[in-house]
Amino acid sequence: MNESNLISLIRQMTLDEKISQLMQLSTPFYEGAESEGQITGPMEAMGITDDMIHNSGSVLGLSGAKEVIQVQEAHLKKNRLGIPLLVMADIIHGYRTIFPITLGLSCSWDMELAEKSAEIAAAEASAAGVHVTYAPMVDLVRDPRWGRVMESTGEDPYLNSQYARAFVRGFQGKDLTNDHSRVAACVKHFAAYGAAEGGRDYNTVDMSAWQLREMYLPAYKAALDEGCQMVMAAFNTVDGIPATGNKRLLKGLLREEWGFDGVLISDWGAVKELIPHGVAADLKEAAYKAMQAGIDIEMMTSAYVHHLKQLIEEEHIHEAQIDEAVLRILKLKQTLGLFDNPTRGASVEQEQLIIMSDLHRAAVRDAAAKSCVLLKNDSVLPLKAEQKIALIGPFAQNGDILGPWSWQGSKEEAVQLFDGMITVSDPENIRISQGCGIETGTEAELEAAVAAAKNADVIVLALGEDSLMSGEAGCRADIQLPRIQLELIAKLKPLGKPMVAVLFNGRPLDLHGVYDQVDAVLEAWYPGTEGGIAIAELLYGKRNPSAKLTMSFPYVTGQIPVYYNHYRTGRPQGAPDAQVRYVSQYLDIPNEPLFPFGYGLSYTTFDYSEARISSGTMSVNKPLTIQVRVTNTGSMAGEEIVQLYVRDLVGDVVRPVKELKDFRKITLAPGESQEITFELTEKQLRYHHHDLQYTSDPGDFIAYVGTSSIEVQELKFTLTKESE
Amino acid sequence: MNESNLISLIRQMTLDEKISQLMQLSTPFYEGAESEGQITGPMEAMGITDDMIHNSGSVLGLSGAKEVIQVQEAHLKKNRLGIPLLVMADIIHGYRTIFPITLGLSCSWDMELAEKSAEIAAAEASAAGVHVTYAPMVDLVRDPRWGRVMESTGEDPYLNSQYARAFVRGFQGKDLTNDHSRVAACVKHFAAYGAAEGGRDYNTVDMSAWQLREMYLPAYKAALDEGCQMVMAAFNTVDGIPATGNKRLLKGLLREEWGFDGVLISDWGAVKELIPHGVAADLKEAAYKAMQAGIDIEMMTSAYVHHLKQLIEEEHIHEAQIDEAVLRILKLKQTLGLFDNPTRGASVEQEQLIIMSDLHRAAVRDAAAKSCVLLKNDSVLPLKAEQKIALIGPFAQNGDILGPWSWQGSKEEAVQLFDGMITVSDPENIRISQGCGIETGTEAELEAAVAAAKNADVIVLALGEDSLMSGEAGCRADIQLPRIQLELIAKLKPLGKPMVAVLFNGRPLDLHGVYDQVDAVLEAWYPGTEGGIAIAELLYGKRNPSAKLTMSFPYVTGQIPVYYNHYRTGRPQGAPDAQVRYVSQYLDIPNEPLFPFGYGLSYTTFDYSEARISSGTMSVNKPLTIQVRVTNTGSMAGEEIVQLYVRDLVGDVVRPVKELKDFRKITLAPGESQEITFELTEKQLRYHHHDLQYTSDPGDFIAYVGTSSIEVQELKFTLTKESE
Repeated sequence: MNESNLISLIRQMTLDEKISQLMQLSTPFYEGAESEGQITGPMEAMGITDDMIHNSGSVLGLSGAKEVIQVQEAHLKKNRLGIPLLVMADIIHGYRTIFPITLGLSCSWDMELAEKSAEIAAAEASAAGVHVTYAPMVDLVRDPRWGRVMESTGEDPYLNSQYARAFVRGFQGKDLTNDHSRVAACVKHFAAYGAAEGGRDYNTVDMSAWQLREMYLPAYKAALDEGCQMVMAAFNTVDGIPATGNKRLLKGLLREEWGFDGVLISDWGAVKELIPHGVAADLKEAAYKAMQAGIDIEMMTSAYVHHLKQLIEEEHIHEAQIDEAVLRILKLKQTLGLFDNPTRGASVEQEQLIIMSDLHRAAVRDAAAKSCVLLKNDSVLPLKAEQKIALIGPFAQNGDILGPWSWQGSKEEAVQLFDGMITVSDPENIRISQGCGIETGTEAELEAAVAAAKNADVIVLALGEDSLMSGEAGCRADIQLPRIQLELIAKLKPLGKPMVAVLFNGRPLDLHGVYDQVDAVLEAWYPGTEGGIAIAELLYGKRNPSAKLTMSFPYVTGQIPVYYNHYRTGRPQGAPDAQVRYVSQYLDIPNEPLFPFGYGLSYTTFDYSEARISSGTMSVNKPLTIQVRVTNTGSMAGEEIVQLYVRDLVGDVVRPVKELKDFRKITLAPGESQEITFELTEKQLRYHHHDLQYTSDPGDFIAYVGTSSIEVQELKFTLTKESE
Repeated sequence: MNESNLISLIRQMTLDEKISQLMQLSTPFYEGAESEGQITGPMEAMGITDDMIHNSGSVLGLSGAKEVIQVQEAHLKKNRLGIPLLVMADIIHGYRTIFPITLGLSCSWDMELAEKSAEIAAAEASAAGVHVTYAPMVDLVRDPRWGRVMESTGEDPYLNSQYARAFVRGFQGKDLTNDHSRVAACVKHFAAYGAAEGGRDYNTVDMSAWQLREMYLPAYKAALDEGCQMVMAAFNTVDGIPATGNKRLLKGLLREEWGFDGVLISDWGAVKELIPHGVAADLKEAAYKAMQAGIDIEMMTSAYVHHLKQLIEEEHIHEAQIDEAVLRILKLKQTLGLFDNPTRGASVEQEQLIIMSDLHRAAVRDAAAKSCVLLKNDSVLPLKAEQKIALIGPFAQNGDILGPWSWQGSKEEAVQLFDGMITVSDPENIRISQGCGIETGTEAELEAAVAAAKNADVIVLALGEDSLMSGEAGCRADIQLPRIQLELIAKLKPLGKPMVAVLFNGRPLDLHGVYDQVDAVLEAWYPGTEGGIAIAELLYGKRNPSAKLTMSFPYVTGQIPVYYNHYRTGRPQGAPDAQVRYVSQYLDIPNEPLFPFGYGLSYTTFDYSEARISSGTMSVNKPLTIQVRVTNTGSMAGEEIVQLYVRDLVGDVVRPVKELKDFRKITLAPGESQEITFELTEKQLRYHHHDLQYTSDPGDFIAYVGTSSIEVQELKFTLTKESE
């Protein structure tokens, strides 16, 4: 079917049919679904009729080949024109074979890995009948109180953009129509959902138009440049108006300025939420504002089906707007090949073949190992297989290591830490004691842990947050580990044994009471299905940690927001002529985070040669190269992430102290060295000026090359006008 | 001298003389100053010549009639055209007789008191030769980590605006030219300095243009509408550009849109700080940007005197711009009557007569009593004169109760708490033990406190922050009381005695470990010179506490920012159809602050009748009245602050959950009642729309009347179009 076929199909549709095409409800509304009829009450309350369901365009949260085929076949029987349903679901970091949470995966700085993870998630999901995933989430984040940082790729717009592209490539592949192992991607949450005030989910977002473009928008744009099929509008306000009803943002910026012509969907219930948000008086006004803003699909509320018709009759909305929205939806169905093959990739055989396959399990294991960040290591890691280990803590034997948004993932299928460790070490060398629960525990449990640790050579503490403590609506005002776990550490400390903390959590934590009490800290995030094995391999040195943080770990909660690419102030701490008191600082803590962006340790050591720059000047047609030789000076093969940052010394607006411009991830055998060459061009020095123009300014810059955002060498250069 | 005289004076000035008129340096640079010559080194380093000093227009931080007269006379001898110096200083909450810190004073909700405080500060300062005070500071604040919240009037734009006007009236009076007991006011910090990110002083400020106008700008505008003579530009960025070099903000908004034609001054060193801010390459560019933005006086750096001439020669700056700036400065001198009387109010006799006079001391005592907020009282207060009191804590006998920005105030002259208490009670009834220092203490000290408290009827704890822990650059990441003081409370708790905490501090604190351990909490802020007596009178019931908070006390640091007039979200906690998890909240704490805006207790009780509204509809020409009868149902005379809030149910942009629209402070004898009538007009319902238009929208509203921002009655009404 080509576009003119689609247009003539639309001509055959009644207005009601067209409007229903814009409605998206969850699985229980659908005939053939195993949960069918469970929502009879809500359906009546919402005034949803059978006809609306039969004419609806898409379904949310449906998967499993058998069920998808049933639902699609039932739907096609009832849909007058035989228009297939789009099946959408949250496939965030794996379908059933679960990858590390996205924030963890992002610490790999590995775009091939990110792409591969999306490809595998897509293959499993597609075999299970899913057509569209609500991913990637590419919200820039600066506040670890917010539970959804676990779903993001961190605080840097460049890195976020690279990941946005990699995930889109991985989900969509090159030919969605014919490659039914892929699914359409839906980039979210447009825009700036990551900036919820106070890190409280769904809260107000407020920033200048300039900062929005400079920091928050690039990753969404990158996803679209990569061909992302869909966009999801955010729950939050942007410039005072909820994104879902924000015409300037959606119609003006996304559609007109950026030229996005794919499907734009609301988030769950967000059209109706224009009412509690206080920008619509009732459902009718909510429908009006969302449609005027450009929302094609209304998720989980019924403003469109109940009010668009009347709004058209009253000439507030043109029927042509509905036609446009329907056309976009039908085009997506066409792109996915649904008109020719309504059940598309759904295949019970394929599900059995690939879901949780050895290949996929190996991939998530590899990803987990590449996502764990070694934050501290005072000569205690790697462990030796013959050492007697006391494995203590609520995550010693706990399958809750998949993290939020692992829908089809099963905790029962996850490899727990103990089970991983005994693949490397003799079970007799490992003594287990839970010590306490996540948030509660008794004195007796704590004492039992001390007893269990008495004869150990090393204590391995498996600590963290349960998976409900992050994710959507999983916001915490205090981001330390729960108190009982800190008590557990304090109880064990007097034993004087070497202690290693392995952390399972969805956000950067305030690690006081942990990092200062133990000898080594491995941040394992939620490592996914094969987490236990991956961590064991790292702990025992079968693999070498290589990940580096993509989000700063604050010194304390009261330091939030803290991020490496902050803007310069007029009174920087530590400047040569700075006063002691009258500088931008807190009295009680340092300005620096506990662990900065780009930071992460290895079991080997890397030596950086003196960095060299090809010239002191650059112009539009004369890029620079920056070179540095990195040598593995330790005794173990390892991976290093070499980072390039730039500071623009003088801007039209205030500029960040550093901005990541490039990086290389390299593998070096012991003694091996490699010359890294970064090319730096004028294009990379452009930024949004006060008038929102995106250009560079001639002037002085500093390039920084190094192993983290703070351990760097400086190189100066000047950008000159072409004529000079 | 009239304006044409001033213009002809400018015509006689050389360009160097004009440029020097724009320079402001501190006292030690000036002949006749007692600190003269102390800055020879810095002067040389800055390249400041004697000629520049002789031609300079103003001096910073000079006071004392004798010294001012010496400096002015010496200056007039050296200044070729006999142009007098302007003498400026930070007179924030009193000159030498010190009022409570502004945040404390603001809790009085008493505009006459605020005006009076400024009038008294002005009278003392003017007698000491000061012509201009860098006040009022009217920055809206939401982050108690920021040390300068102590200098603000809180989180509400309406209340801030009322205070801005009151302070300007108090400082300036009605006739600056002839009333030499007044000084010119300089409203600061333009704009939005209170929104420093992370509450870290001098840090980035970023917000939408819409929020800036709606919340942050009104108070500055109110000060100007009241005739405020000067404006100080803020240290921070506004929309990406430091205010000091922000042409759109200063020239565009302040000068052109608002029509401000007074003197615009930089903050200390802020012109030069355009360099570390990264928007100027060097001092010359800094001079250029500040002048283009409209800064008339450069404070404490030398960009103008060294570079304006060259910038004019190179035609980057027009000499007419310099002339304009000089004219504004000369006009201010004329307004202050300096051409006729260069030493103006400076008078050693007058200093002796009024500074620290009984009248002024009585006024600051009254203000202190009206500023202390009773946060909790479980039947322990008021104390009885015959009770045996253990007065414990680092503020039991401590003169550090003036707070930051009390320059000429002397801790030695402050009435300490113990000295205040013995004006009411017999000294033999009060046993003192310091217990600990502000941040340090020994086990022995703690034990001594416990011993001292053993035989007491009531323990009065005098706790807090020292005055360097707030104020400029006094920012704290953790806003609890210092740990040792919490330990002191915990040590005393097992005695089982009634405990009263009196708090001396410059910001809302996280009071966990205090309010939950003691029976009563009196927030005394830094109460000023007569603090000890005022607090004693409150503690012993000689006076009745009446103040109410103007800034929310957060539940914990991790809840920041928390403020009553927050915007509505799409997923409010506690809505009738709200889910348990998927609402805007933290998992670990409530959304509400510990103590909200508008909250404060009394020793008496007030009963509110059912509130009445004159009509269910309002229009432009048909305002509403809202009435409520308030009765003192207790046994002590008391003051109540009756508050009126409004919620706009549907807006063009998201609207606050509540906005203060009016209030009345009333005094009621026991059994007395009073009918309060609020008029509410369409004008009060206007707000800044997305396009920055300031209008109201027809639709539904809720009015709230009550005793705090959360204890209210609701009344519904509808704003209709005039025609309806």
